[in-house]
Amino acid sequence: MTEFKSKIKTIEWVDTYSRMVDQTLLPEEFKYVNITGGKQMYDAIKTMIVRGAPAIGVAGAHGVVLYAQELAKENLSRDEFIKQLNEKADFIASSRPTAVNLMWAVAKQKEVINNSSSGIAGIVEELKQKAIQLENEDIEINKKIGDYGAEVVPEGATILTHCNAGALATVGYGTALGVVRSAFAKDPTIQVFADETRPRQQGARITTLELTMDGIPTTLITDGMCSYFMKKGMIDMVVVGADRIAANGDTANKIGTYTVAIAAKYHNVPFYVAAPLSTIDTSIKTGDEIVIEERSHEEVTHINGKIICAPQVNVINPGFDVTPHELITGIITEKGILRPDYKKSIAEVFNQDLSYRCKHY
Amino acid sequence: MTEFKSKIKTIEWVDTYSRMVDQTLLPEEFKYVNITGGKQMYDAIKTMIVRGAPAIGVAGAHGVVLYAQELAKENLSRDEFIKQLNEKADFIASSRPTAVNLMWAVAKQKEVINNSSSGIAGIVEELKQKAIQLENEDIEINKKIGDYGAEVVPEGATILTHCNAGALATVGYGTALGVVRSAFAKDPTIQVFADETRPRQQGARITTLELTMDGIPTTLITDGMCSYFMKKGMIDMVVVGADRIAANGDTANKIGTYTVAIAAKYHNVPFYVAAPLSTIDTSIKTGDEIVIEERSHEEVTHINGKIICAPQVNVINPGFDVTPHELITGIITEKGILRPDYKKSIAEVFNQDLSYRCKHY
Repeated sequence: MTEFKSKIKTIEWVDTYSRMVDQTLLPEEFKYVNITGGKQMYDAIKTMIVRGAPAIGVAGAHGVVLYAQELAKENLSRDEFIKQLNEKADFIASSRPTAVNLMWAVAKQKEVINNSSSGIAGIVEELKQKAIQLENEDIEINKKIGDYGAEVVPEGATILTHCNAGALATVGYGTALGVVRSAFAKDPTIQVFADETRPRQQGARITTLELTMDGIPTTLITDGMCSYFMKKGMIDMVVVGADRIAANGDTANKIGTYTVAIAAKYHNVPFYVAAPLSTIDTSIKTGDEIVIEERSHEEVTHINGKIICAPQVNVINPGFDVTPHELITGIITEKGILRPDYKKSIAEVFNQDLSYRCKHY
Repeated sequence: MTEFKSKIKTIEWVDTYSRMVDQTLLPEEFKYVNITGGKQMYDAIKTMIVRGAPAIGVAGAHGVVLYAQELAKENLSRDEFIKQLNEKADFIASSRPTAVNLMWAVAKQKEVINNSSSGIAGIVEELKQKAIQLENEDIEINKKIGDYGAEVVPEGATILTHCNAGALATVGYGTALGVVRSAFAKDPTIQVFADETRPRQQGARITTLELTMDGIPTTLITDGMCSYFMKKGMIDMVVVGADRIAANGDTANKIGTYTVAIAAKYHNVPFYVAAPLSTIDTSIKTGDEIVIEERSHEEVTHINGKIICAPQVNVINPGFDVTPHELITGIITEKGILRPDYKKSIAEVFNQDLSYRCKHY
């Protein structure tokens, strides 16, 4: 498999600090910011300078290293150092209380802290190594997802995606857009159609940016247009990410995904979900159990700070929807593509590798 | 039937000019603009100061009067006046390609021009009277559409609509929103869900404004959300307008309509089109023959003058899509609700009233 070299490294440990793309400035500016202190990392996660569940996880791991470096300068006893660092780790984990990957990554660092037999300097070094390992693992998992996914991308395909499940949501390769990158490495005639993804426009603001930076031809469309292009035969497949997948394959993803899935079904366009196994929550049987976050009304009524509707209007703003398993052609994971019946195929892959059973949280 | 009194008069002939709501300023400003020349009317239609198929039709009729007034000052022979006015009428008709009402209304004015036995001043006066007649007929037709449509609105219904087929798309009552107004007059417990309708956001900017101005409860949603609310059982029916309807019932309407229709079918939600018979173009057999206007890319890439995506991105911006007849529960017209098989029901209604046979395009 030809490997695709992406220009984007969303978050990276550099010597003594964390370097990340400041996502609050996209798409106008693509700028890196160096996070040099623990509290600064807490704020960066909270204010969404870094976003995307896998990227936030790594940011949390970096945050623990930053606090460790600070505490190491304070002339503490080893016991006091460990006690205070555990507290700081919990503080970092509280920056986005719903992000599962954040708790998971901070928990990994706490294992390092509490299982180490080294002195203070040694612990700092071990935390740094763990952080770098988590970064590399995230990219490796995404590349495996990408390579499995690329196998089902037809020659010269146009791939529709919704929201941003890309390099900028992860350390640097992407899940849905990882599939795109791996496919493009094999076949530079493929292209992407990106849904704008209102209300927050991650498709317009982030997906078009990261794909054009990597030289992948990308067409921006508004969310209502997907059926028009499907009917014209211009969309060969859909690939989206996932926020949570139930044991039966029902998939929660950014609001609007379900509408795309229905349109794909109507036009017999294959609809794939690309996500690491850590996204599958086998503790819930179906998508009905997934709680949908209701987000700020201003996301719907305002764009760039300006109101777009009558002020007296009502708003409901669900952040996610659930695509039922019967609309999903396959779930592309780092262990291969899961196919219906998902209840069976998900149970099988989890039985093969016990380490995926709830090891993350 | 209780009549609903709307506050809105979108376009109106006043003495020697056309007065219209400047829809490019909505929702921030509700302001009237006077169109005093033929070319100014062409530009007003093209730049969507006036929009909505029936309103554009009346604007086209006004445009012909404005050109007639101008040519009447030029000391032309009657023959030369008629020749040049026919050319100007064709020019006006070319301002928007998809809306059949524009061609229809201009054709009505050309009938006046070419069948008149009056002198130049007489022709100008006859065109003015015809324009005023078309205005009044538009409101009467919309009220009939509203009343027929209200009969199929369930008690306490939530009605989803896309784009704006309202008072602001017509002279003053609306087609899809005419159904809403007539239903609300009978049953004030109904409410509306309005799709934002990217790229131009007519649902957000115009539908929420005109409905809340008239005191009708309205919830704004983004275009991708419709399926989410349908699955929750929160949408009882969909009613949209139309820009052109083929002899088999295939309906061109604002881009995104087709996606809503597919979602409605998937959830067994009734999907109605509300449009005057003048929207039906019996000269075309199916929707495949409808020319879809490709609009400016900036409508997709910019909102309120600010770019929302990577500048290197490609854009395709079809202004309309075609909803195939098999997704349409009924077509609500001023002569009653047409039902499948539309080829038959449309032919029947046109045979009953020969004046709807459009022989000029």
